[in-house]
Amino acid sequence: MNKKIPIGILGATGMVGQRYIQLLEDHPLFEVAWLAASDRSSGKKYGEAAKWRLDFPLPTRIAEMVVAPAEPAGAPKVIFASVDAPIAREMEPAFASAGCAVISNSSAFRMAPDVPLVLPEVNASHLEMIEQQSWRKQSGGFIVTNSNCTVMGPVLALKPIADSFGIEQIFAVSMQAVSGAGYPGVPSMDILDNVVPFIRSEEEKMEEELMKLLGTLDGNTVKPLPARMSASCNRVAVVDGHTVCVSVKLARPATKEQIIAAWNEFKPLAGKNLPFAPEQPVQWTPEDDRPQPRLDRNRGRGMAATVGRLRPCNLLDWKFVVLSHNTVRGAAGATILNAEMLKSLGKL
Amino acid sequence: MNKKIPIGILGATGMVGQRYIQLLEDHPLFEVAWLAASDRSSGKKYGEAAKWRLDFPLPTRIAEMVVAPAEPAGAPKVIFASVDAPIAREMEPAFASAGCAVISNSSAFRMAPDVPLVLPEVNASHLEMIEQQSWRKQSGGFIVTNSNCTVMGPVLALKPIADSFGIEQIFAVSMQAVSGAGYPGVPSMDILDNVVPFIRSEEEKMEEELMKLLGTLDGNTVKPLPARMSASCNRVAVVDGHTVCVSVKLARPATKEQIIAAWNEFKPLAGKNLPFAPEQPVQWTPEDDRPQPRLDRNRGRGMAATVGRLRPCNLLDWKFVVLSHNTVRGAAGATILNAEMLKSLGKL
Amino acid sequence: MNKKIPIGILGATGMVGQRYIQLLEDHPLFEVAWLAASDRSSGKKYGEAAKWRLDFPLPTRIAEMVVAPAEPAGAPKVIFASVDAPIAREMEPAFASAGCAVISNSSAFRMAPDVPLVLPEVNASHLEMIEQQSWRKQSGGFIVTNSNCTVMGPVLALKPIADSFGIEQIFAVSMQAVSGAGYPGVPSMDILDNVVPFIRSEEEKMEEELMKLLGTLDGNTVKPLPARMSASCNRVAVVDGHTVCVSVKLARPATKEQIIAAWNEFKPLAGKNLPFAPEQPVQWTPEDDRPQPRLDRNRGRGMAATVGRLRPCNLLDWKFVVLSHNTVRGAAGATILNAEMLKSLGKL
Amino acid sequence: MNKKIPIGILGATGMVGQRYIQLLEDHPLFEVAWLAASDRSSGKKYGEAAKWRLDFPLPTRIAEMVVAPAEPAGAPKVIFASVDAPIAREMEPAFASAGCAVISNSSAFRMAPDVPLVLPEVNASHLEMIEQQSWRKQSGGFIVTNSNCTVMGPVLALKPIADSFGIEQIFAVSMQAVSGAGYPGVPSMDILDNVVPFIRSEEEKMEEELMKLLGTLDGNTVKPLPARMSASCNRVAVVDGHTVCVSVKLARPATKEQIIAAWNEFKPLAGKNLPFAPEQPVQWTPEDDRPQPRLDRNRGRGMAATVGRLRPCNLLDWKFVVLSHNTVRGAAGATILNAEMLKSLGKL
Repeated sequence: MNKKIPIGILGATGMVGQRYIQLLEDHPLFEVAWLAASDRSSGKKYGEAAKWRLDFPLPTRIAEMVVAPAEPAGAPKVIFASVDAPIAREMEPAFASAGCAVISNSSAFRMAPDVPLVLPEVNASHLEMIEQQSWRKQSGGFIVTNSNCTVMGPVLALKPIADSFGIEQIFAVSMQAVSGAGYPGVPSMDILDNVVPFIRSEEEKMEEELMKLLGTLDGNTVKPLPARMSASCNRVAVVDGHTVCVSVKLARPATKEQIIAAWNEFKPLAGKNLPFAPEQPVQWTPEDDRPQPRLDRNRGRGMAATVGRLRPCNLLDWKFVVLSHNTVRGAAGATILNAEMLKSLGKL
Repeated sequence: MNKKIPIGILGATGMVGQRYIQLLEDHPLFEVAWLAASDRSSGKKYGEAAKWRLDFPLPTRIAEMVVAPAEPAGAPKVIFASVDAPIAREMEPAFASAGCAVISNSSAFRMAPDVPLVLPEVNASHLEMIEQQSWRKQSGGFIVTNSNCTVMGPVLALKPIADSFGIEQIFAVSMQAVSGAGYPGVPSMDILDNVVPFIRSEEEKMEEELMKLLGTLDGNTVKPLPARMSASCNRVAVVDGHTVCVSVKLARPATKEQIIAAWNEFKPLAGKNLPFAPEQPVQWTPEDDRPQPRLDRNRGRGMAATVGRLRPCNLLDWKFVVLSHNTVRGAAGATILNAEMLKSLGKL
Repeated sequence: MNKKIPIGILGATGMVGQRYIQLLEDHPLFEVAWLAASDRSSGKKYGEAAKWRLDFPLPTRIAEMVVAPAEPAGAPKVIFASVDAPIAREMEPAFASAGCAVISNSSAFRMAPDVPLVLPEVNASHLEMIEQQSWRKQSGGFIVTNSNCTVMGPVLALKPIADSFGIEQIFAVSMQAVSGAGYPGVPSMDILDNVVPFIRSEEEKMEEELMKLLGTLDGNTVKPLPARMSASCNRVAVVDGHTVCVSVKLARPATKEQIIAAWNEFKPLAGKNLPFAPEQPVQWTPEDDRPQPRLDRNRGRGMAATVGRLRPCNLLDWKFVVLSHNTVRGAAGATILNAEMLKSLGKL
Repeated sequence: MNKKIPIGILGATGMVGQRYIQLLEDHPLFEVAWLAASDRSSGKKYGEAAKWRLDFPLPTRIAEMVVAPAEPAGAPKVIFASVDAPIAREMEPAFASAGCAVISNSSAFRMAPDVPLVLPEVNASHLEMIEQQSWRKQSGGFIVTNSNCTVMGPVLALKPIADSFGIEQIFAVSMQAVSGAGYPGVPSMDILDNVVPFIRSEEEKMEEELMKLLGTLDGNTVKPLPARMSASCNRVAVVDGHTVCVSVKLARPATKEQIIAAWNEFKPLAGKNLPFAPEQPVQWTPEDDRPQPRLDRNRGRGMAATVGRLRPCNLLDWKFVVLSHNTVRGAAGATILNAEMLKSLGKL
């Protein structure tokens, strides 16, 4: 039996930090060994520092851990990070310089030319980029990122389509859960009996991250997918689960059956020993009125994207709806899966 | 002082029927004189037959009225109708044959070649089509319809754009309120903490009705706007107010300022004596995060469409968000405005 | 025609401050002339300083007003205040000392022995207490308060019962709207698909304020009603409108009909010229399943309390449900009605 | 290894029926072998007959089962029932007469003098009553019931208090989830931005069932607990989980610590082999603002009641808040636990 790898969490009190803790409870490879958050929390017991918001009891062992200062000294060599971009911009390089593997959900470095933006099902090969990072060469440390939560569902659904038929244009309109804005996040006055048709910087992130994820590694940089995309992002009264209406123009014609087959056959991680990899990462549902966040977000223990309503689009070629759990698949689970992939590649 | 025109309501107990009653209370031209609903309600007092769901006290006079059988005998000559399509398909011609002006919110005859589908701000000239209806020639009766509630906001926003710059392609994704499904309508188990990405026949209605509304009268039929449209419809946890994300490809280039000016200057009914016509039918809001249903649905006493977030679209030319009150502007108020328009044209 | 009295608003950018602005638009006696808020807002235009959250367009005149520093210099002589207790504790006496009539919704001085806590329908006579306030004697200024928003509905419903039958014990369990917590207030993660069975200090406020409101003026202090009360407060997913389940033990027996009659006949302000006084402050509804916040909160333009479900209680004597609009009747409207009452008494 | 007992479900397509299926998937003792529902569903595959509303994929084996007519012929000997009272009143005796063990969540026979109303943690001894049922004597069949979903949390919390200190008076105000009303159940127009302060017959059920559950077996009938109770029931915008504010008057004084100890030590089923019995049926939470439905309903896999906010009551002695999952602990899980208890007693 292997010893588990101790990991640290930067941003441990936030919504995604809480999900790391929940999802790593009983994880076969990793073990939470260090928790850091803002100065305000540092020195307190985690159970007092965090306002625990999950439907899963905070493990006693974690509640009793003392929140450490957010500094590399004393931190383990593997760090899961989910902090605001301005903080990430300073801290993540500091930890990488100190020799840490920084596996990050933060947005700060996702589009940096030498930082891989990876979902293992989509572009695991991009992880090789870390070998050229200056941190890696100096201290062994590196930074790897996963995408924004809203990109996650669409890119999983689009990857097998891109591989089989090519993609030229994408239209995406999201209806996003409030947990994506963290805690306290969205005021209830803004979401009860309401829709907020705006999430700052979200449309830009969707449009650029999706192209990098579907891009090709060219030497040591990623050539983004040469497709055009228009994204519109909305906040709705849902706790967890982002729903996205997607239309797509293909490079080569495809029938409905062919697209569904592409989804059903999409199992790029089969056979690899990755505990968080869902058996079926894209799950097709034939019902008229699915996917729905409350009913489908927990498929594949929250790691699968559910697709439905595939039908012709009058402007592009096909349209469909895709749903994924924004704090599991779209954030904490994505980081963990990246870590598992890095481990299987011998990079942790 | 003119005497008010007595009107009857077909489908008086439904959600739209209730809105007719609310909106006609104190109307300067029309007066509710007759209420009809299903056989189950017939013979009961309205106050007992209807499950009143509006935030407006049911007027005592109306509560005491006895629900009539849904037959032309005894009905007044002007009928506001909002009933399910299969029922409308039988009843509305029966009332028109009997000489009634049937001003309808039902979907049954919206796309019939000899029936005008009209929003007065958009295509009031189409009302002339009634003169060729067989009912009109025989008994003086006719059928006029207004559009589906989801079309209403987009078509108001698109009309001034179409007039100034031409429209070639439209993308629309809706987030619709539950009141649009009537009562009991959407089960709460389906909408709390959830989105339902499907509303039966709604996408088809949006795509075809919008083209007829923006079409041109050619002899006695409407030549639909020769544009292509792709609509996706979703139900969200909102009581009233449909929000639609729209992208549009223009025939001729337009700047952001020109489009906003087109909206601001769009006052096609100014100077006509139409009590329900909003002074400013399309209201531009410059805030980042508007329109929002809870905050904007009651603009223009529920009869205005609010537009915001105008920005370039990476695929088409421009995208924006439009919101309108689905049971006022999108249903009962639209019928009333059609009636006011017909009256001003001397057809009632 | 009288000239309107210029009034100032302390806490103008908050939820209740916004309601003052809305409700005073077109008020026959008062006119908003001065707006003050925190230092952060001071010097900005109101339209920029406030995050306007009401379903009512911010009047342009108000949007253009510059937010003043929260100091008596330059303020008008009548101040409507709604600020957090620690701030009120400092500011309200400062304004009163400077000769201002401070008519307050803040909680700081509600229980102060020389400050009247008044709802005009319930205990207008308590307003005389201001004549003994030291501020009044020195500068003419004074402080008058209205109660906590959750007390408002129950105390209106209980006043006619207390007058007719006496009250010995009260049980109250509230289900409160999120607007009562201000903005940003309750995080949406806490209220979607949830109930929060706790609101800090609310139960204590209910229990003590209700007794002072129903108390008797004895010389210059209020002798609280000698009854016992147990309150439990909960937050639910409602935008506006607090619903309270009340049980009551009477001093003298009463029938259901007698209690309903007491409510129906309760019109203590009839004949006084108070524009915000609802014609029928307590409105009985005989339906099984009412009152409901969405349907009943706007009765009497938001100033009436609605009562329903009167039935025997197995432990005390009678139980019923009462609902009132928490930011209109329960806050801003209560302040305005107090001001109207003070004016009619010649004290403004 | 024992063979599993085949069970049938009466009312299989309803919300509770769906929970039976979910909870019995992988149950060590029972196996779903037969599904019956209304005539409308009979003969269809379950996957087509049921509108599956759970966040748990419908097992393929179940989806393929054909719904049987609701008749004893062909049914297994153990029946889990959850049907409307009028239907239960006819069907459950028919199945019992045919020799079936009818373990029911329906309300029809809960208060029948010879039918046990049982929660195993509270009054397992009452199960002996079945031996005197006429069905039992004739065919071996019997009827056992569990309580209404709203009673469940309070009775679990009150049982250890009753045992240690005696209970004389109970006040209970509920805030109930929409799943308790089944599907389609509560219209979304009634619950978005709203509270419905009425649930037909619910208050009566709470008041009488709780006394029977806490009653004592006297010969072959139950002597109800001689306490008085007043219940008020409300529907709120929550998917799953009933929250109840409870006040209680004790027969003998108790400190806060003693009551908490009574809860913590309450493990009446410890050591029995009952897979659905939660290790800790009543879970005390010391946080200010708990229990909350979204955060606490799944404790003990949905079978535990969570209590919090224990504090003195100004009218009775103590008050607290209790929460339990209404379709797991409050319905399907209760039936299953009754079945497990019956099996351990050798009665299945």
